[in-house]
Amino acid sequence: EFAKLDHHRLLRQGFAEVVFCQGKTVDQVQIIIERLSEYNRSILATRATKEMYDAVKKIVPDAQYHQSAKLITIERQKPTVDKERFVLVMSAGTSDIPVAEEAAITAEIMGNEVKRVYDVGVAGIHRLLDQHQLIEQANVLIVVAGMEGALASVVGGMAAKPVIAVPTSIGYGANFGGLAALLSMLNSCAAGVAVVNIDNGFGAGRLASMINHMR
Amino acid sequence: EFAKLDHHRLLRQGFAEVVFCQGKTVDQVQIIIERLSEYNRSILATRATKEMYDAVKKIVPDAQYHQSAKLITIERQKPTVDKERFVLVMSAGTSDIPVAEEAAITAEIMGNEVKRVYDVGVAGIHRLLDQHQLIEQANVLIVVAGMEGALASVVGGMAAKPVIAVPTSIGYGANFGGLAALLSMLNSCAAGVAVVNIDNGFGAGRLASMINHMR
Amino acid sequence: EFAKLDHHRLLRQGFAEVVFCQGKTVDQVQIIIERLSEYNRSILATRATKEMYDAVKKIVPDAQYHQSAKLITIERQKPTVDKERFVLVMSAGTSDIPVAEEAAITAEIMGNEVKRVYDVGVAGIHRLLDQHQLIEQANVLIVVAGMEGALASVVGGMAAKPVIAVPTSIGYGANFGGLAALLSMLNSCAAGVAVVNIDNGFGAGRLASMINHMR
Amino acid sequence: EFAKLDHHRLLRQGFAEVVFCQGKTVDQVQIIIERLSEYNRSILATRATKEMYDAVKKIVPDAQYHQSAKLITIERQKPTVDKERFVLVMSAGTSDIPVAEEAAITAEIMGNEVKRVYDVGVAGIHRLLDQHQLIEQANVLIVVAGMEGALASVVGGMAAKPVIAVPTSIGYGANFGGLAALLSMLNSCAAGVAVVNIDNGFGAGRLASMINHMR
Amino acid sequence: EFAKLDHHRLLRQGFAEVVFCQGKTVDQVQIIIERLSEYNRSILATRATKEMYDAVKKIVPDAQYHQSAKLITIERQKPTVDKERFVLVMSAGTSDIPVAEEAAITAEIMGNEVKRVYDVGVAGIHRLLDQHQLIEQANVLIVVAGMEGALASVVGGMAAKPVIAVPTSIGYGANFGGLAALLSMLNSCAAGVAVVNIDNGFGAGRLASMINHMR
Amino acid sequence: EFAKLDHHRLLRQGFAEVVFCQGKTVDQVQIIIERLSEYNRSILATRATKEMYDAVKKIVPDAQYHQSAKLITIERQKPTVDKERFVLVMSAGTSDIPVAEEAAITAEIMGNEVKRVYDVGVAGIHRLLDQHQLIEQANVLIVVAGMEGALASVVGGMAAKPVIAVPTSIGYGANFGGLAALLSMLNSCAAGVAVVNIDNGFGAGRLASMINHMR
Amino acid sequence: EFAKLDHHRLLRQGFAEVVFCQGKTVDQVQIIIERLSEYNRSILATRATKEMYDAVKKIVPDAQYHQSAKLITIERQKPTVDKERFVLVMSAGTSDIPVAEEAAITAEIMGNEVKRVYDVGVAGIHRLLDQHQLIEQANVLIVVAGMEGALASVVGGMAAKPVIAVPTSIGYGANFGGLAALLSMLNSCAAGVAVVNIDNGFGAGRLASMINHMR
Amino acid sequence: EFAKLDHHRLLRQGFAEVVFCQGKTVDQVQIIIERLSEYNRSILATRATKEMYDAVKKIVPDAQYHQSAKLITIERQKPTVDKERFVLVMSAGTSDIPVAEEAAITAEIMGNEVKRVYDVGVAGIHRLLDQHQLIEQANVLIVVAGMEGALASVVGGMAAKPVIAVPTSIGYGANFGGLAALLSMLNSCAAGVAVVNIDNGFGAGRLASMINHMR
Ligand SMILES: Nc1ncnc2c1ncn2[C@@H]1O[C@H](COP(=O)(O)O)[C@@H](O)[C@H]1O
Ligand SMILES: Nc1ncnc2c1ncn2[C@@H]1O[C@H](COP(=O)(O)O)[C@@H](O)[C@H]1O
Ligand SMILES: Nc1ncnc2c1ncn2[C@@H]1O[C@H](COP(=O)(O)O)[C@@H](O)[C@H]1O
Ligand SMILES: Nc1ncnc2c1ncn2[C@@H]1O[C@H](COP(=O)(O)O)[C@@H](O)[C@H]1O
Ligand SMILES: [Mg+2]
Ligand SMILES: [Mg+2]
Ligand SMILES: [Mg+2]
Ligand SMILES: [Mg+2]
Ligand SMILES: [Mg+2]
Ligand SMILES: [Mg+2]
Ligand SMILES: [Mg+2]
Ligand SMILES: [Mg+2]
Repeated sequence: EFAKLDHHRLLRQGFAEVVFCQGKTVDQVQIIIERLSEYNRSILATRATKEMYDAVKKIVPDAQYHQSAKLITIERQKPTVDKERFVLVMSAGTSDIPVAEEAAITAEIMGNEVKRVYDVGVAGIHRLLDQHQLIEQANVLIVVAGMEGALASVVGGMAAKPVIAVPTSIGYGANFGGLAALLSMLNSCAAGVAVVNIDNGFGAGRLASMINHMR
Repeated sequence: EFAKLDHHRLLRQGFAEVVFCQGKTVDQVQIIIERLSEYNRSILATRATKEMYDAVKKIVPDAQYHQSAKLITIERQKPTVDKERFVLVMSAGTSDIPVAEEAAITAEIMGNEVKRVYDVGVAGIHRLLDQHQLIEQANVLIVVAGMEGALASVVGGMAAKPVIAVPTSIGYGANFGGLAALLSMLNSCAAGVAVVNIDNGFGAGRLASMINHMR
Repeated sequence: EFAKLDHHRLLRQGFAEVVFCQGKTVDQVQIIIERLSEYNRSILATRATKEMYDAVKKIVPDAQYHQSAKLITIERQKPTVDKERFVLVMSAGTSDIPVAEEAAITAEIMGNEVKRVYDVGVAGIHRLLDQHQLIEQANVLIVVAGMEGALASVVGGMAAKPVIAVPTSIGYGANFGGLAALLSMLNSCAAGVAVVNIDNGFGAGRLASMINHMR
Repeated sequence: EFAKLDHHRLLRQGFAEVVFCQGKTVDQVQIIIERLSEYNRSILATRATKEMYDAVKKIVPDAQYHQSAKLITIERQKPTVDKERFVLVMSAGTSDIPVAEEAAITAEIMGNEVKRVYDVGVAGIHRLLDQHQLIEQANVLIVVAGMEGALASVVGGMAAKPVIAVPTSIGYGANFGGLAALLSMLNSCAAGVAVVNIDNGFGAGRLASMINHMR
Repeated sequence: EFAKLDHHRLLRQGFAEVVFCQGKTVDQVQIIIERLSEYNRSILATRATKEMYDAVKKIVPDAQYHQSAKLITIERQKPTVDKERFVLVMSAGTSDIPVAEEAAITAEIMGNEVKRVYDVGVAGIHRLLDQHQLIEQANVLIVVAGMEGALASVVGGMAAKPVIAVPTSIGYGANFGGLAALLSMLNSCAAGVAVVNIDNGFGAGRLASMINHMR
Repeated sequence: EFAKLDHHRLLRQGFAEVVFCQGKTVDQVQIIIERLSEYNRSILATRATKEMYDAVKKIVPDAQYHQSAKLITIERQKPTVDKERFVLVMSAGTSDIPVAEEAAITAEIMGNEVKRVYDVGVAGIHRLLDQHQLIEQANVLIVVAGMEGALASVVGGMAAKPVIAVPTSIGYGANFGGLAALLSMLNSCAAGVAVVNIDNGFGAGRLASMINHMR
Repeated sequence: EFAKLDHHRLLRQGFAEVVFCQGKTVDQVQIIIERLSEYNRSILATRATKEMYDAVKKIVPDAQYHQSAKLITIERQKPTVDKERFVLVMSAGTSDIPVAEEAAITAEIMGNEVKRVYDVGVAGIHRLLDQHQLIEQANVLIVVAGMEGALASVVGGMAAKPVIAVPTSIGYGANFGGLAALLSMLNSCAAGVAVVNIDNGFGAGRLASMINHMR
Repeated sequence: EFAKLDHHRLLRQGFAEVVFCQGKTVDQVQIIIERLSEYNRSILATRATKEMYDAVKKIVPDAQYHQSAKLITIERQKPTVDKERFVLVMSAGTSDIPVAEEAAITAEIMGNEVKRVYDVGVAGIHRLLDQHQLIEQANVLIVVAGMEGALASVVGGMAAKPVIAVPTSIGYGANFGGLAALLSMLNSCAAGVAVVNIDNGFGAGRLASMINHMR
């Protein structure tokens, strides 16, 4: 028995166990998703290859694949969504979009209205200031940025709501695989910002959904 | 003019600019707090020495000092607090309490009911499981832990609400000033956990307050 | 003469020199195993590719290959095993299984009863608590975990017997190739835990066997 | 309530909770030891200053202080000790002795016969080879070394019993506070070696005691 | 002869050798400055303690001390300054001022008009936008920032002139002595930004002066 | 809308937004360059693969590809160039040439006279001293070096004009992907040196152009 | 002109410039070796691929390739060798042989008698002690070791002659690409040991040759 | 018995065991030197405080203290010295002199002629070139440098004899306690350079002496 699924998770935390596909064989992913799909209506698998998806689709035909975000989703019943309270997912550059999409789709399958504003890095600050209304209206913000990750601090200073910062591994040289953006975000001089792991769009989407559902 | 105070912050983000005293002279801290206290009812200064407090108290007699947390607070009008929705501040060890208190007092001055559960590290997991009701009832959780920081993952798996993890610099050797707990928390296998800087109790308290006030 | 085999090792330490195949050519592995197999009944080679195995099998037909663990074993005489005293090998996730299997098979070929409990990471702590009887009965425990490696601390707090912690390189981002789990385990707040190198299932299995044979 | 003592630990793991004094106030240490001493016969506190000891002694007059190891011990009833099975504590240099003593005294208070061999670093290998009989007779070995920590590998290759390696922070420059010895020990080419945190003599002594009591 | 002064430097590079006082004895600093003052009209010594200054003043009575910047200066003839072309020195916080002053005074003694804008960190971006005219008019910009150092990127995107970024060691935790700001600035998504060592106000002032004197 | 182009950049900073191709799809690069080419006469794209270039060329036939530097350029109108004021691009080794060319071509497309001196590393210092006239005549210098990056310090001591140092990732072992050269350059004992990211030839060329255009 | 060959090096330092092939194109390597071979009798090129060798061989038919060491050599006249004074090249494991061979062949082409002793790592110390006569007779020693690199310290303590330690990148996990062995060797408790870069067999062979030729 | 002195070392390696005082108590240093002085004519103790020296002097009145180098020496019989073959000790800056003196005095007590050239860092290369005759005449060279450590590469390219590079911890910011100079020296593009630990003047002097005595 290679996997002890946490079937209790939906009850305990509001969403079924999410499958982390990296490091698993195609067979393992296929079997885990099959078993999860017997008990749950909405299923999410992260860091899935196209090959894994093809194997899953044979058994669970309504599974969908999100190429750029590398997500497999199964959504048998649309969750009710409060359109007023939206999660704003922002990215600093075009290259950060895969991680931003991982966050956005995660939040959507967990029942959230999501708005996207991509490529608004701080090197042309007017592009960001143009978005100030969305930033003020958003209920939760996810800021996805690589390189120096400065976007998190600037947005953190503009928004009155929680900001979840996601450093990405986009960059080179002294970026050290996302370390530069990670340290930058952890040291943000703006309050109200918390950080998840480098490239962890899923974690940001999951937490944003939790916060967005608070009443 | 050594300080451009952000007098707009109360309006924009719901609480006045918080003073980061480290690296400032006693004079600078005194003057900044004096100026802030003209415009704001609640004031918070972090990483303040006793000497700084003494200088402030001469000018702002109702300032208070929290020894262990190294906070100066001024609170001219108690904020209204929703007693039902509480922030739960947990610490893994006794040595983490100063950081936990920084978080707790920050949340309190920002108008939150706070409950504290200290010294429930995972080496004796029954101590933690004993607290499961509080963990399930809490509206937001702050987990403060040094050494290996495992508490964040265990609590993150038990709670349905957002967990803000604060690594501390408590430890020695391969702890590298809190790096061990920081990396541990960033890599948490539990979802719904976000991380702030090492020893940043203030940041955790501020974010918890934002989340706890969401309606 | 590219290899000075330590033929004395079986006498001195109870098991023949184990071959570390990484960085060796296929020819070198073949020759070394051939020479070792002239003097020893049980042989173990780690981090072996399928190609290496195929070359070995031509010369030593009773060699076996363990795909996931990347081990070549030769076992000409089953060692006597004390079924009462078992080594418990635990893994936090499914992705950690290859390292866990390296540990388990190593312990088995060295004459130990081994029980396996996989995918009991701390994010769903009930899965772990369900295993408490095994944890209490085990004579030695090997805990294999990637990401934040918190499992070692929790198990370390539950068990009265030695825990050998094996960090794995499973994870991404601020995991830094297993560094997060390594530091976490080294800083464990539970006593009775010692750590081997990242992904070093073999080393854990070897040490567990030594301890398990103490009388 | 700043400390939730784990009174169950003696039952569960054979020895009372050990107090980690670093980061605690003198008052906290005093109160914790007082409370522990009501329920336990043997008590150990690590990283204690002389000032802490003086405060403890006022309340628990039979407490003892071990200057170099920075340990406070209370030992109301000598544990039975099997003189045949001894723990061998070795140090590479004179400067590593404080950590070695932390390990040795920990093992002693937990009921083990301990032998000490200090200052046998590998730069004069004959000093080490002179000890080969002790190395072969020991039931468990603790190797304490700073600088490059090579002693662990050499002893690991000579002994047939488990070796617990303790890197120390002794050294300078590219030693980086013990990192050199730590990495060295984790990468030991000898099998049967496991590692604890830098300067963690206590952890090594605790684990050695567990192993030494196996029957 | 402990110091081989580079008396040729004034000719070759336009300003006498600058004395780096850290790691030198008071005597050495005194003698070096005395010898330099025989050949040069303007002298600068960095990282000087008050004690060093007192020793220097005895021998060179017109030496001046800049407390916060820890600079000793001797200025026997005011250099001609082009008032139109100014160097703009900006700091993110009040705590960064000592480094900013090191840069500003260095630029001044080398014959530059300097304007200062302090405490305009990105957490309240309006404070920075208020300065946009100065930013556009400046001939060279020096941006001094600790914590996450995001100010460099934002200013880099607003200015058409060279930006010299100076990371400071202000911060704590995952700041790692200025590493966070350093990596952030090196990875700036704004072009036209170059970086000097952490806390190296002198280097920034020197380079700014070189650039500002280009015709 | 995956890209918010900063069409204002030419006006604000004198050159159109430069495209960072790494991490973008071929389609994205093609569309971005197409849109930029509608508004701008000179376009630069960095870290472009040959495949990206082929896609761009189909739509923008006058695009050119610089193989070694991995640059795509479009240059519809030669900028006026002041032949007297040249940027000197130096490399320490032959292996550093791709980065040096990225810097040189960037400076050229931005309207600068560029001279190249390659393979003058400090191990044969006469090769460098032979170039002293060029070094003294240059208006701005770019020093590109991998391994230990010592060239920047030596050139920095010879030149009276600004030196922009570019560490490269050329090297192996304790080079750690360019870290050795980066730290070396940041700690240069020569003043007047500033540093850009590892392998960031573009950033150096852009800044050199800004400085070279100062009047 | 992509390469400024240092034709003066043979005169100045006793051997022609050695070609570092990594990061160069096949064409560049071919042209450089062609040009060097016009002026020099012995030529060495390191980190050369088979493809580079094939291109060189077309033009310089007497060039030779050393597969494991990745060296190209041209040796038109055997240097005179003092057979009494030999360089002893030792490796800890079989996997370290490629680096050891780089060192050995470098020393040979520079006119040294070389003896090789491979696979004598410290885990079986008798294998090393068996070689004590060679160790005492050698005039210079090169110790090549990966993993924890302990061999350098042990040999350093046995030999009365200079020991050049070469860390290799052999290992995994907390080896961090050779960092463990590097730090270990730099912190060696044996005196008379100096260290070259990770995997730098060439540098060790070159220095050993210099020392071995001292009279 | 806290110290097992290696009385065999004089015979085996030509000089008595050298005492590393750091981390030892004053009493331990006193006793060790007393015991060594019974068997040896020349004694060296490194990193000794004045307090340690005072304790030693009471018992061994002919002991001498070298303040800046922090060495205690006893020299009862001047060794014969070959004046022709000298060790050249060079330092980049004045602040590096304490480490340079540790190297120089070590070489002297071991019977070597030593010449010193201090403060010839590469920022004013003419100062270094002025010394080219000494550099060519020296039999062994020790290069001591902090900050970016570039001096080792330049000297390494000028000298035909072995260069021992000693990085120092002089510097600040991204120097990281000497890491910058260490990495720089390990990656030197000059051949014939080997490196010892940061601030390890002793190790360099010891190795230089070994090499200088080769016949
Ligand atoms: N020197 C030490 N190093 C590591 N862990 C320790 C040390 N001393 C005590 N401990 C552990 O620290 C835990 C107590 O932490 P605390 O609750 O903060 O006092 C106990 O479970 C001990 O096992
Ligand atoms: N992309 C991701 N990053 C981090 N954690 C994840 C990711 N995807 C899934 N998880 C978590 O990983 C756990 C599953 O791990 P495993 O048992 O190895 O499949 C689940 O508890 C998820 O919350
Ligand atoms: N494997 C090697 N490792 C380090 N340096 C080398 C190596 N091979 C050659 N070199 C040095 O690299 C320099 C040539 O660099 P380049 O001009 O880039 O070819 C020569 O001065 C050699 O001393
Ligand atoms: N604060 C500083 N940071 C970096 N370099 C400096 C500083 N102050 C002076 N310098 C440089 O240090 C060199 C002098 O070093 P030294 O010979 O050790 O006094 C001069 O060439 C200066 O350019
Ligand atoms: Mg963009
Ligand atoms: Mg506790
Ligand atoms: Mg699982
Ligand atoms: Mg000793
Ligand atoms: Mg401020
Ligand atoms: Mg070259
Ligand atoms: Mg071997
Ligand atoms: Mg100087």
